[in-house]
Amino acid sequence: MPDIPLASAARTLSRRLDELGRVSDERGKLTRTFLSPAMRRANARVSGWMRAAGMKVREDGVGNLIGRLEGSAPEGRDRHGRGKTFLLGSHLDTVRDAGRFDGALGVLLAIEAVAELRRRRVGLPFAIEILGFSEEEGVRFSSAYLGSKGYCGLLTSADLGRRDPRGISVREAIGAALGGPFKIPGRAHSPSDLLGYLEVHIEQGPVLEARARPTGVVTGIAGQTRARIAFEGRAGHAGTTPMGLRRDALAGAAEFVLAAEALALAGAPLVATVGGMAVAPGAANVVPGRAEFPLDIRHPRDAGRRAALRSLRAAGREIARRRGLKFSFTVTQDNAAVACSRRLTAVLERSVRARQGRCPALASGAGHDAVVLSELTPVAMLFVRCRGGVSHHPGEHVGRRDLATALRIVVDFLGRLASGRQIP
Amino acid sequence: MPDIPLASAARTLSRRLDELGRVSDERGKLTRTFLSPAMRRANARVSGWMRAAGMKVREDGVGNLIGRLEGSAPEGRDRHGRGKTFLLGSHLDTVRDAGRFDGALGVLLAIEAVAELRRRRVGLPFAIEILGFSEEEGVRFSSAYLGSKGYCGLLTSADLGRRDPRGISVREAIGAALGGPFKIPGRAHSPSDLLGYLEVHIEQGPVLEARARPTGVVTGIAGQTRARIAFEGRAGHAGTTPMGLRRDALAGAAEFVLAAEALALAGAPLVATVGGMAVAPGAANVVPGRAEFPLDIRHPRDAGRRAALRSLRAAGREIARRRGLKFSFTVTQDNAAVACSRRLTAVLERSVRARQGRCPALASGAGHDAVVLSELTPVAMLFVRCRGGVSHHPGEHVGRRDLATALRIVVDFLGRLASGRQIP
Repeated sequence: MPDIPLASAARTLSRRLDELGRVSDERGKLTRTFLSPAMRRANARVSGWMRAAGMKVREDGVGNLIGRLEGSAPEGRDRHGRGKTFLLGSHLDTVRDAGRFDGALGVLLAIEAVAELRRRRVGLPFAIEILGFSEEEGVRFSSAYLGSKGYCGLLTSADLGRRDPRGISVREAIGAALGGPFKIPGRAHSPSDLLGYLEVHIEQGPVLEARARPTGVVTGIAGQTRARIAFEGRAGHAGTTPMGLRRDALAGAAEFVLAAEALALAGAPLVATVGGMAVAPGAANVVPGRAEFPLDIRHPRDAGRRAALRSLRAAGREIARRRGLKFSFTVTQDNAAVACSRRLTAVLERSVRARQGRCPALASGAGHDAVVLSELTPVAMLFVRCRGGVSHHPGEHVGRRDLATALRIVVDFLGRLASGRQIP
Repeated sequence: MPDIPLASAARTLSRRLDELGRVSDERGKLTRTFLSPAMRRANARVSGWMRAAGMKVREDGVGNLIGRLEGSAPEGRDRHGRGKTFLLGSHLDTVRDAGRFDGALGVLLAIEAVAELRRRRVGLPFAIEILGFSEEEGVRFSSAYLGSKGYCGLLTSADLGRRDPRGISVREAIGAALGGPFKIPGRAHSPSDLLGYLEVHIEQGPVLEARARPTGVVTGIAGQTRARIAFEGRAGHAGTTPMGLRRDALAGAAEFVLAAEALALAGAPLVATVGGMAVAPGAANVVPGRAEFPLDIRHPRDAGRRAALRSLRAAGREIARRRGLKFSFTVTQDNAAVACSRRLTAVLERSVRARQGRCPALASGAGHDAVVLSELTPVAMLFVRCRGGVSHHPGEHVGRRDLATALRIVVDFLGRLASGRQIP
């Protein structure tokens, strides 16, 4: 396959990222959450681009957008994956006040790569599915990966019973947005029908920038546990409850926040985050009776993450005992560390080296849809440099030339897969 | 004046407290905030009771309900306060999920006392105004005493420009609820026209219960400062931002919460409370970029309160410096400690002794409308025992017999004022 500059395709990609970045549930900022009106509009917009690239488009039972291109190469080459499917994609939802690359990049770049292969009249011996997952960030239901879990047949009744802050369950939200009789979706493919999954994603960290390379391959993804934690004490009048008689839930929570921070500071590469705090009754003149908050901890090794969890549970119990509070700790999400496929990653590395010289290899501290997909099929990830390592923020940025490089790498990668020497 | 049992009047009072306790903005719980629909209904209901007690009723420019009974005793007794006005009252708004006595008791008991004097055909040489203040708890605008400040002509443009969480200003809220062209209200009376102010209120603490007395007089009210505090850091991805590079606003706020608690624990009778915590962006997988919260500190001596404020400001600055955060500390309310009028309190003590024997004298840790009224006229307060010291909670309770005792004391007190030996 000739290495043409792809400048026009990269411009299209850049323009579409801008365009999709304006599809939002909030005025003046980018926010798209699971099954929201903006997510419905985003799916419609991206469907059009998939169709223009020659794909057949459908939506599955949890709102994932799926574009499929059947294999077009001559038959009789079974070892090239004929009749099998290779997956590419990422998610179309966002955090609140997000940037326009996190998630969208992996979907739109894959569409552009497929369009480019079509323009070059390159036939692939296997089918391609491009996946725009409906939920990855965990904003609406405080639980991530609802989209990819649905695609992989991993949603449980517990997942479907989760409720958003307005009391609407996942099941009800799906019914309201998609209509029709609801059933728990099964997996989209059996593992034996799949060749693998490639996800292109911004790095969300500073390593590629420091190494002055547009992209790098991901060796593995840190394990992650999310928990919902609550301290419960006794509300009281801020002026008439003596300090010694208080059972202040927020003070207990504050101790926990600092204990989690201290544990992670001393235990790198562990990271621990308390991202919010809900206090009840919540009035300036009332001693807090209840404080509830999420905990997010991550570690590249499962043993390290589990040790941190044990340690923080014990710290919470001790704080509660000493302060006369009740303490609850509910794990809402638990993902083991994931190793990327060595064989797929080796192919990807060759494509990266061919396009940018050296190929950095990184561990991912962030979770990605590839975590869930790894339960179904081998996964590989390409990280793309983002300015200042900034993500989950409107300042998130990927340069036009880096977009072009990443696009070339994915086109090259698909060509290598198709050439048959590289099918796992 | 004969000491008849007043049992029927106490029953009426009890029934009206129950009835008013069902006038709420929230289903299944009692919540009435400044100028809310429930407050409008509460004013209408209480107006009826004032009229039934023979009072002329009006509403002032900030929604305070004012019932007035002109003096009826023969003229020529200037030293008895003829032509002057004595004030009684409290507030009709509540905290969220409130009890039914805090505030309402002081208004409804005063109405019952006036009705009782009328039934006994007792003439007073001075006029009485019963005040149902429209705002005391500070729920809607995070600033207390908007009602009594309006009555006393102490509202500033800064007060009127304050905005509720939906962005509506005090000025706009008044315009929307009361209509008509808005102007900053002047004080309702000049100090020389007033004899004083009596507020009956539940104790909101455990002292009267411990001393087994239905009521007690208040010697003074703790000074109180409320501030709005914010730490600002940098939002970041919870999985990819190394601990050492974080500027976590919530971790800074957690340190502050514990610093305030430690200062107050070591500095009794100082009390310090952080009653809420707003975190932005507020997602489980994002390091907090901003944490904002209210601080409430109280001390019976102004110097003690000011020293605590200085100390906490310094602690916040130190936390911010060490963590690379921005720190802001905005005083939203500042009330000096208030001493109750010795002369009025001496009269009240005589009434208490006459009805219940010993008379406990208490300092109030809670702020009351009397704090603001003290800028206009001498104030006195009668505390009524409440079960378990519980307040700001649906479990708030005053026994029927304690209601009757408090009512007898106020009738006795007004009689003593009218007898003329006691006019200040």
